[in-house]
Amino acid sequence: MTALRVAVLGAKGRMGSEACRAVAAAEDMELVAALGRGDDLGALSEAGAEVVVDLTRPDAVMENLRYAVTHGMHAVVGTTGFTPERLRTVRDWLADAPSTGVLIAPNFGLGAVLTMKFGQIAARFFESVEIVELHHPDKLDAPSGTAVRTAQLIAEARRAAGLPPAPDATASALPGARGADVEGVPVHAVRLRGLVAHEEVLFGGTGEMLTIRHDSFDRVSFMPGVLLGIRRVAGHPGLTVGLEHFLDLD
Amino acid sequence: MTALRVAVLGAKGRMGSEACRAVAAAEDMELVAALGRGDDLGALSEAGAEVVVDLTRPDAVMENLRYAVTHGMHAVVGTTGFTPERLRTVRDWLADAPSTGVLIAPNFGLGAVLTMKFGQIAARFFESVEIVELHHPDKLDAPSGTAVRTAQLIAEARRAAGLPPAPDATASALPGARGADVEGVPVHAVRLRGLVAHEEVLFGGTGEMLTIRHDSFDRVSFMPGVLLGIRRVAGHPGLTVGLEHFLDLD
Amino acid sequence: MTALRVAVLGAKGRMGSEACRAVAAAEDMELVAALGRGDDLGALSEAGAEVVVDLTRPDAVMENLRYAVTHGMHAVVGTTGFTPERLRTVRDWLADAPSTGVLIAPNFGLGAVLTMKFGQIAARFFESVEIVELHHPDKLDAPSGTAVRTAQLIAEARRAAGLPPAPDATASALPGARGADVEGVPVHAVRLRGLVAHEEVLFGGTGEMLTIRHDSFDRVSFMPGVLLGIRRVAGHPGLTVGLEHFLDLD
Amino acid sequence: MTALRVAVLGAKGRMGSEACRAVAAAEDMELVAALGRGDDLGALSEAGAEVVVDLTRPDAVMENLRYAVTHGMHAVVGTTGFTPERLRTVRDWLADAPSTGVLIAPNFGLGAVLTMKFGQIAARFFESVEIVELHHPDKLDAPSGTAVRTAQLIAEARRAAGLPPAPDATASALPGARGADVEGVPVHAVRLRGLVAHEEVLFGGTGEMLTIRHDSFDRVSFMPGVLLGIRRVAGHPGLTVGLEHFLDLD
Repeated sequence: MTALRVAVLGAKGRMGSEACRAVAAAEDMELVAALGRGDDLGALSEAGAEVVVDLTRPDAVMENLRYAVTHGMHAVVGTTGFTPERLRTVRDWLADAPSTGVLIAPNFGLGAVLTMKFGQIAARFFESVEIVELHHPDKLDAPSGTAVRTAQLIAEARRAAGLPPAPDATASALPGARGADVEGVPVHAVRLRGLVAHEEVLFGGTGEMLTIRHDSFDRVSFMPGVLLGIRRVAGHPGLTVGLEHFLDLD
Repeated sequence: MTALRVAVLGAKGRMGSEACRAVAAAEDMELVAALGRGDDLGALSEAGAEVVVDLTRPDAVMENLRYAVTHGMHAVVGTTGFTPERLRTVRDWLADAPSTGVLIAPNFGLGAVLTMKFGQIAARFFESVEIVELHHPDKLDAPSGTAVRTAQLIAEARRAAGLPPAPDATASALPGARGADVEGVPVHAVRLRGLVAHEEVLFGGTGEMLTIRHDSFDRVSFMPGVLLGIRRVAGHPGLTVGLEHFLDLD
Repeated sequence: MTALRVAVLGAKGRMGSEACRAVAAAEDMELVAALGRGDDLGALSEAGAEVVVDLTRPDAVMENLRYAVTHGMHAVVGTTGFTPERLRTVRDWLADAPSTGVLIAPNFGLGAVLTMKFGQIAARFFESVEIVELHHPDKLDAPSGTAVRTAQLIAEARRAAGLPPAPDATASALPGARGADVEGVPVHAVRLRGLVAHEEVLFGGTGEMLTIRHDSFDRVSFMPGVLLGIRRVAGHPGLTVGLEHFLDLD
Repeated sequence: MTALRVAVLGAKGRMGSEACRAVAAAEDMELVAALGRGDDLGALSEAGAEVVVDLTRPDAVMENLRYAVTHGMHAVVGTTGFTPERLRTVRDWLADAPSTGVLIAPNFGLGAVLTMKFGQIAARFFESVEIVELHHPDKLDAPSGTAVRTAQLIAEARRAAGLPPAPDATASALPGARGADVEGVPVHAVRLRGLVAHEEVLFGGTGEMLTIRHDSFDRVSFMPGVLLGIRRVAGHPGLTVGLEHFLDLD
């Protein structure tokens, strides 16, 4: 088997340096280039990169992506800031490169992606659902973006199934006790020193409860998802948004 | 909307009496017959039953099913003891009744069925997996049948994905510490006064953990699954084994 | 061993009837009287009751207690509505009966009492603490009284130890996301069909987390605490408020 | 307030270097010496150390301790290998230094120490108890030493309270399903990639469950316990074995 030739952009950042380590350690891959801010993209061509991993910043990612697509390289992108307009631009570039694949993923954690997916599937079978997310106390937003997104997907699945609102007889409550309301799904944000990133989706039905919990203990938890993206991107020409579409879940 | 005409067989048993209550309480159903051991099956025809729910015993279920199928009634069956030969016999009867549906389900708990399904889906994405099941101390077998079945399905999914055995450096262990080995998946059985029936499937990968937990607090937890089976059986002609096939999970 | 002679007041109520069953089943006790509303208290003396269990209502409990104390019977009380003035009155009665014991307990669940106690002990060792309580959706108040009480006890222990407020960098939050503020301890109330009564106290410190969780699956969970109170009340003359004082925890 | 003058021995090891960082960051302490293997202990006296933290190895710790005690320095010791004979020797040295304190602690994790303590307290109130410990798959022993120690303490408390064995009707079990038997307490060891060190003590009684769970995510979780030991050792002259004795738990 010939090793897949992989380049990492943003190689000096926290995620990028982890990605370099993970690619270098993968038996079926070769790390052929590791570029930082300001390095010449021409090095990607010289290195013969087949897949480019972009873990840079919103102000750099579009130029990187254009270079990759116009030079026939697939791309796996964890950088944020993709507006609908930016996505349209990427699709336009790909129209001229029909065999090239680009994966843009807001979250490379397999556990997080599966939690959302399972939450969507289970949503229509239970009367009640709430989400508890738990993070370190230095986090600025509450609830986390992942928890809000999970709640929205579940709310959408409940609406599609014609479910009524979850039962709640609360008549007297302290402010905030019942959590934040995200499209009808209560979301509770816990902040504790020592934690990293954790999410629980709690479903309740007559006489039973189903819990889906994801614990992320370390940034390296994203690497299996990045490697999976690298391995599969060539098999998915065009633009894909969301790692879940590479997981053969449907 | 015309209410679905439902009959319950084994109506005096623990599950059967719960089913009578649940059917009677459902707005889209009418309980038209509730038969116990020795009652004449002719009552099913007189009552005009459209769906027959069988919660009887292995020595009664086959005769009940033959009556239902030959009289054009759909059947939802929670009774145990279905050998491959019995399943073949039911299929033979159904060959002559192409619009009739029979659902035979070893477990009507939606949470339990989803736990198995999610376990199968997640299996191929994680290096490690173990199962912890927890029950009341009057239970005779360990691990529970549900936990063993879940482990087998996960083991099958791992094999299909070509995963190696889960890592385990244990060099010195007390007997039993690492649980029972079910096709390579360790299964731990906890027995505590006060509990009912609980199962945790624990997946571990680099830097993260995914937990799927099902808590069954009460026998009534099976009723939403029974009602779902009653509502959907007419739309699934022929024999279906396993409630998961009615859940549109794929 | 002579069996302890126990009478139950409020014997037809939900808690009272459970208590009758529990006392009757205990090998070291004899149920000598089971009175309902309106029954003559003289029956307590006729039956030779040594310990009276009061599970009645606020409008009946004081008269019952006076009868018990003035007739030399110990009392174990689960009835609510004890104001400071009522407690003073009970103490006055007991001043004339120095060998008689009265236990008034707002909560007979051993698990709940231990959860509060452990919460108090652990409070001063951790930077962060939050409480998540989970109940069935027919509950009227949020958070539960037990969770509020637990939070107050923990807040008191933190103040006594001179701890600063728990760290929380939240700068942008949806309303309610961070829970209800009970004296600086965030409390989150989850409501799900199928649940009974559950409480988690979560402590976080550098690199670690300590969780104390209590699950109450059934009203019978209060009975071991009631029996313990009956067995020990004679050994604690005077008035005791709170089952924790009978548990030899200090 | 004058800062406490602290020296760390074994300063280049994993635990020792964390301890140096923690002491240096504590406002009420000053790190006055950080010695590695082979460094001259005379540096402790020159630096005017008041408390010596020993995180070295069994072959070095006794000489270090003798130096500290004979020079009037208190000591906080995390090094292992203390036999009864070694403890006797340390006590002999301390007999001549009545105002000097030595703390030897097998575990500086506050959460782990509290978990054991709470387990001991709760033991006598519940019919059933089991332990589940979860670790990374590179761990060599199963169950963990902490889980075995916790089980022993609980078994001792049950015996002291005269409790019968926990109920268990298991008649048919796969080998290992019911865990390892540690003095009558079943202990289950789970090994999953991605985990660090986690322990659950599960108590079950009629209708209820009490869970005490400790999650250790990082080696730094030991530092608050080390700092607490440093602050309190001067107030506990003589030899103390076990951090729990400094926590004012009784």
